[in-house]
Amino acid sequence: MKINDPAVLAEVEAAFAEYERALTTNDVATLDRLFKDSPATLRYGVAENLYGYAEIAAFRSARSPVGLERALERTVITSYGEAMATANTLFRRDSMVGKVGRQSQTWVKFEEGWRVVAAHVSVIAE
Amino acid sequence: MKINDPAVLAEVEAAFAEYERALTTNDVATLDRLFKDSPATLRYGVAENLYGYAEIAAFRSARSPVGLERALERTVITSYGEAMATANTLFRRDSMVGKVGRQSQTWVKFEEGWRVVAAHVSVIAE
Repeated sequence: MKINDPAVLAEVEAAFAEYERALTTNDVATLDRLFKDSPATLRYGVAENLYGYAEIAAFRSARSPVGLERALERTVITSYGEAMATANTLFRRDSMVGKVGRQSQTWVKFEEGWRVVAAHVSVIAE
Repeated sequence: MKINDPAVLAEVEAAFAEYERALTTNDVATLDRLFKDSPATLRYGVAENLYGYAEIAAFRSARSPVGLERALERTVITSYGEAMATANTLFRRDSMVGKVGRQSQTWVKFEEGWRVVAAHVSVIAE
């Protein structure tokens, strides 16, 4: 299994960047598209545990679009083989004084493209 | 790509169960073995951000062995193809009143066996 094949990694990095843009601009259609449409898809958020694509999409559509801007730190994207990757990053927001966020995603390449199959976001004190 | 191939899923479920036993009995050697020995391996813990296998192993060896017992809830393990899987679960401890833990792992099958390449653990209020 090839780890960090440059062509694969470039695809995942592009998908990750597209997701980040969509998140900070509250582009719900793109956020929805980049999560795998499956009952197995799962997202543990800052204050909610969402099981299945339907719960994730409902959460996105109800989310406040205020204060989403953030700065990423220590982002690590690693691809394993041709069709899977992990993306992990710390993040900071002006509203999160003394705290740091962590975002973990597992990406899988399907026929329709790279999709997040599992995500976990949390905030801790520094 | 076959999702949840029964033979693949059974392997991951066994690895997940082995990890859980090791965690609750503080079997540090097994915990270390089940994480991929790589600088790319990453673990966001309840109160720490560990980058690379060496930081994770150092954390394990310094961890208190007290109060590790826990009950799992809503565990979802999903395999994608032959060599990757996600494992996500909620967990509760007697010491965590009014709170629920979330544990996310990405597993990859290498020549040496199934290994966790990325993990994220957090605790939130219910």
